[in-house]
Amino acid sequence: MLADDPLGAEREGDPGDPRYLAAFERIDADPWDELIVAERDGKVVGTMQLTYLAGLSRLGAERCQIEAVRVAASTRGQGLGRKMIQWGIDRARARGCAMVQLTSDKSRAGAHRFYDALGFTASHEGYKLSLS
Amino acid sequence: MLADDPLGAEREGDPGDPRYLAAFERIDADPWDELIVAERDGKVVGTMQLTYLAGLSRLGAERCQIEAVRVAASTRGQGLGRKMIQWGIDRARARGCAMVQLTSDKSRAGAHRFYDALGFTASHEGYKLSLS
Repeated sequence: MLADDPLGAEREGDPGDPRYLAAFERIDADPWDELIVAERDGKVVGTMQLTYLAGLSRLGAERCQIEAVRVAASTRGQGLGRKMIQWGIDRARARGCAMVQLTSDKSRAGAHRFYDALGFTASHEGYKLSLS
Repeated sequence: MLADDPLGAEREGDPGDPRYLAAFERIDADPWDELIVAERDGKVVGTMQLTYLAGLSRLGAERCQIEAVRVAASTRGQGLGRKMIQWGIDRARARGCAMVQLTSDKSRAGAHRFYDALGFTASHEGYKLSLS
């Protein structure tokens, strides 16, 4: 799913690359990091990563950062993405997070309508600096 | 420093609030989370938080997220912020991070010129959803 995407196609490698497994194991071991999968008929049709970020600001509030939201091409347009993000928001609220945050590439116009409709505000500029 | 800011003034509380200490202790205990302070003449004049985020995308690349960048009012305009962010970028590169990322409130025009000049690209929309 990571590679089946106009942006992802350029930057992913062999799924058997051991670096993927090492990253998975680190996330799995981290109590503040969760990889979520959506299954339908025993098949993974969606993924996302929720990271609970500590911080001193806002009275030491925890924030939930959503990354790597992907829905299988075969399942798009059926509301699964919306259900996944809503599930993540509910999970963050249940933990007592003060905020849910994510960034979305400015070229993904469809994604922006999607996040706007879910109640997010595009209040920030998302800055990236590639080191590779 | 968190409260001495047009946005921060509205959302911070008593510095002795135990929630600040609890958040500090969590960051301190997390091997992938660092609170950095800049000192001058024994006084803290700048702070920032570096979090090393795991992820499956980009061959399991680690990203460095910078949050809570603050420079003491008495020290602004002397290039300290630039030195701090450059130090963070160098530290992320030395760890092998593929990317440094941060978000900046769209109302902070001065900060945007600052990050542009440091080589960052405002390639993403930064979405926030407040739960409080």
